[in-house]
Amino acid sequence: MSSSDRRFVLTLGCPDRTGIVARISTFLADLGGSIVEAAYHADADSGWFFTRQAVAASSVSVSADELRSRFEVVAREIGPETEWALHDSGEPKRVVLLVSKEAHCLHDLLGRAAGGELPATISAVIGNHPELEATATAHGVRFHHVPFPKDPAERGPAFTELKELVDSYSPDAVVLARFMQVLPPELCEHWAGRAINIHHSFLPSFVGAKPYHQAFARGVKLIGATCHLVTSELDAGPIIEQDVIRVDHSDAVADMVRQGRDIEKLVLARGLRWHLEDRVLVHGRKTVVFS
Amino acid sequence: MSSSDRRFVLTLGCPDRTGIVARISTFLADLGGSIVEAAYHADADSGWFFTRQAVAASSVSVSADELRSRFEVVAREIGPETEWALHDSGEPKRVVLLVSKEAHCLHDLLGRAAGGELPATISAVIGNHPELEATATAHGVRFHHVPFPKDPAERGPAFTELKELVDSYSPDAVVLARFMQVLPPELCEHWAGRAINIHHSFLPSFVGAKPYHQAFARGVKLIGATCHLVTSELDAGPIIEQDVIRVDHSDAVADMVRQGRDIEKLVLARGLRWHLEDRVLVHGRKTVVFS
Amino acid sequence: MSSSDRRFVLTLGCPDRTGIVARISTFLADLGGSIVEAAYHADADSGWFFTRQAVAASSVSVSADELRSRFEVVAREIGPETEWALHDSGEPKRVVLLVSKEAHCLHDLLGRAAGGELPATISAVIGNHPELEATATAHGVRFHHVPFPKDPAERGPAFTELKELVDSYSPDAVVLARFMQVLPPELCEHWAGRAINIHHSFLPSFVGAKPYHQAFARGVKLIGATCHLVTSELDAGPIIEQDVIRVDHSDAVADMVRQGRDIEKLVLARGLRWHLEDRVLVHGRKTVVFS
Amino acid sequence: MSSSDRRFVLTLGCPDRTGIVARISTFLADLGGSIVEAAYHADADSGWFFTRQAVAASSVSVSADELRSRFEVVAREIGPETEWALHDSGEPKRVVLLVSKEAHCLHDLLGRAAGGELPATISAVIGNHPELEATATAHGVRFHHVPFPKDPAERGPAFTELKELVDSYSPDAVVLARFMQVLPPELCEHWAGRAINIHHSFLPSFVGAKPYHQAFARGVKLIGATCHLVTSELDAGPIIEQDVIRVDHSDAVADMVRQGRDIEKLVLARGLRWHLEDRVLVHGRKTVVFS
Repeated sequence: MSSSDRRFVLTLGCPDRTGIVARISTFLADLGGSIVEAAYHADADSGWFFTRQAVAASSVSVSADELRSRFEVVAREIGPETEWALHDSGEPKRVVLLVSKEAHCLHDLLGRAAGGELPATISAVIGNHPELEATATAHGVRFHHVPFPKDPAERGPAFTELKELVDSYSPDAVVLARFMQVLPPELCEHWAGRAINIHHSFLPSFVGAKPYHQAFARGVKLIGATCHLVTSELDAGPIIEQDVIRVDHSDAVADMVRQGRDIEKLVLARGLRWHLEDRVLVHGRKTVVFS
Repeated sequence: MSSSDRRFVLTLGCPDRTGIVARISTFLADLGGSIVEAAYHADADSGWFFTRQAVAASSVSVSADELRSRFEVVAREIGPETEWALHDSGEPKRVVLLVSKEAHCLHDLLGRAAGGELPATISAVIGNHPELEATATAHGVRFHHVPFPKDPAERGPAFTELKELVDSYSPDAVVLARFMQVLPPELCEHWAGRAINIHHSFLPSFVGAKPYHQAFARGVKLIGATCHLVTSELDAGPIIEQDVIRVDHSDAVADMVRQGRDIEKLVLARGLRWHLEDRVLVHGRKTVVFS
Repeated sequence: MSSSDRRFVLTLGCPDRTGIVARISTFLADLGGSIVEAAYHADADSGWFFTRQAVAASSVSVSADELRSRFEVVAREIGPETEWALHDSGEPKRVVLLVSKEAHCLHDLLGRAAGGELPATISAVIGNHPELEATATAHGVRFHHVPFPKDPAERGPAFTELKELVDSYSPDAVVLARFMQVLPPELCEHWAGRAINIHHSFLPSFVGAKPYHQAFARGVKLIGATCHLVTSELDAGPIIEQDVIRVDHSDAVADMVRQGRDIEKLVLARGLRWHLEDRVLVHGRKTVVFS
Repeated sequence: MSSSDRRFVLTLGCPDRTGIVARISTFLADLGGSIVEAAYHADADSGWFFTRQAVAASSVSVSADELRSRFEVVAREIGPETEWALHDSGEPKRVVLLVSKEAHCLHDLLGRAAGGELPATISAVIGNHPELEATATAHGVRFHHVPFPKDPAERGPAFTELKELVDSYSPDAVVLARFMQVLPPELCEHWAGRAINIHHSFLPSFVGAKPYHQAFARGVKLIGATCHLVTSELDAGPIIEQDVIRVDHSDAVADMVRQGRDIEKLVLARGLRWHLEDRVLVHGRKTVVFS
């Protein structure tokens, strides 16, 4: 990113009422802010208002911190329930990837990061199996192996090690890139809003294990993948992105697995990029995605 | 259809073994049969073999009935579990549509029938409400109103009337074109293999009532529709066709309902056409669709 | 539409500069305007800014005319090149459909209008052939037959009659719903911004006659349709919407024609609805579509 | 591939006539051949017949060579124009990739090859620039740099070197994976049926240079990619596969380039896999793809 592309990205959610857009846009205009992108959503169902605004950093004469402290006043005026953040795209984000044995999502994200497609650095890859170490290190990314005992009752220490390792990188996103372990509730809570999973089905169909086998058994004509935020309820977190691909009677489970990989990669890559670009706003069990 | 387009369509399913294709194709070749379309599927999971062959009627010198009686010998040779049918496309099929108050699927199918897109005659439309009578009669199709009592326990006589009315047309397909009544098990059984439903979700997600409301509540990013054969288990019959359309946070339930109609129409029209062209072979809970 | 759903829809395009959003949103907020939908686009390529804002009519105490006259002052402040319009959704729009012999788009739009999907009245259907009269009148819509001579050099009077007939309805949209005549430049100019065509290919591929035949000859794996504004250059006007459907080697031209109809219907219906809801802003050869 | 998955794949094209299927299937049945997959296409337009049959190698007691010499007799019986091939999936194919500076297709194919998704070995990567050497060698694949002079008139020796290098690997597929050089006619001829290109547009739209810029200028609502066999006419060879992705007014050229990469990767990977599995039969300017 050249410095001329640097942006301050404001995201905000609050109970809807008249005048919020005027208040925010006047604030930005008074600073000379040139708005590169702006999106709004008034949700009739929840009564909430959401916005995302990207301002050319070069157009305002103040720092991100100064902007934050000035906007704090506006946010308070708008109301006490207001949730907001201001991100400086010049401060690159950090991502930690959790993997198991399946390489495709890892390989795909490493390629995108190398090609400049993800506005973030992949800080580390952590596997509960050692198989993907070479894939990570070939891209110059550090790999950690945290073995998980077979007995679920004995996995506590492994999760503790995982938590400390991940937290040591202070990541903006913890991506379960076909990590085959269910996170314990305390880790879901600890990484709330930052832990992103790719599930290999079109949720809410085929929750849990072996979704392609479930899809095959049911005889569906499309298979899909879902990128969602992780919550303590399995495969039930707010959905960021989904997509599907057509299958037919000639596709065995192995064909579904192969074709499904392409959808998993695409859906995870899109969802992660939107998260890193502050395009995903969560409200209750749902997301607003300003893609 | 011009007489030169008339076809004999053979469909067959049986336990797979070597030599079936050779046996069938030799039989057809010996009659001089010119094969216009041929499709095969050997299902590794169930161990069954399926085929559909369309022969130009003008290329064989025998009648459909004669062809059936000769093929009976071949089928017996292939094995006792063999299931087969031979349809003469010169004998047009009959369809009865069951509707409620929603017009879009009815309007769509009537337009397709008028345009020659469906290889069948729509014999009658039966509604549990009178609202769609004008839509049917404007296309010259007879409409019957069979009122259903509010209390499910009192609907027995209405279902009996429905059964007799439908059966009086000897239909090849009984289409639940957004018919909002759940058929009793004995009707599912009675019309097995002929009753086709359009469900307004991407099954197995959102079974039952108000699937768009369910989809909205879950925050999915795609909504879909499913055309399936009716069985006594609600929304669980063999799937013929499915498709989806993208939605986002800005779509309220009413928007989903509106956009979903287009997918319902497409999916039902495709599924029904395939059924009428003998492209759908059912095996257990699944279909083979030679589209 | 219930009166509580009535909206004032403002669309605006102008050279981009700082403060436009603030100016407009402050104007609306000062009137107490509750913004139901808002969309913005700053086009880096052309340097233009575009917006569409839908305000709940019940939230502002002035009439549409009063709102227009007050906004005129704001628009002048924003700059002399500003193009804007304010539409009152309580004033229903009028559509005239031009057809030939193909029924599918006509049938589809009549069904949508009857179902309340189009925010407009279909005022009349005009055909250069008489075949579709019954389709129109079955929906209670007036049909006019304007015969066109075979010799293109002699079509002048027919186009004059067409122009006068169309203009007698003062339509907001003149839809070429598979009308197989190329409009003369003066009619393109006369109906500029209101004449909408559906072309049965994925433009710019397969301009002109028989696009499905062209697609078949080239062996493409997807066929499409394009809804665009009519300009004097054939099939080259600003594109509103496009979509495609998969075909393969087994599809003859007739199969493409049949499958293509579904895409034509969908693409035209979407494009027309967006036009009628003031979601389509034209700039040069391109559109901004706030769908 | 386990030995039990080894297949003999027969592909055949010939003028259509009665009895071909019977002749081939009887031949295979007489050898005890268990048919795992079979596909047929009778092309009404060209009057040709095409088939692909995959036989479990373990079910026939003869070698691939013996099978070929026996089938030669059948092919001669069928007719002098018959074109056929029999491939033993136990003899892995070889692929050479030609690249320039864009890494995404290379990275994607290397990942698929490593994951066992491509039934082939990537023998070498050849670049007209040195940038992608590390990407290739990180996957253990040999990289050759063949520099091309700026002046097209002076590229003859480079093409000669390229030809010799490629031919030294006797590849079954020469893939132009975003190779930005137009092959001279003699190389197109030399590698006819084996050279596969990915073009970053939905052909026949936007032939030649900078298709995303062309797409942006035209304002299309979908962008696409096309995998095709290379012929001496630029971007006009038989199409194997195409796909598209939705864009809108907010997408600048750079956004199209980024989103387009995903479609390029998918379309090339599918097309190449089908080619390597002998699923692509070419006839004139078109393909039959038994996918």
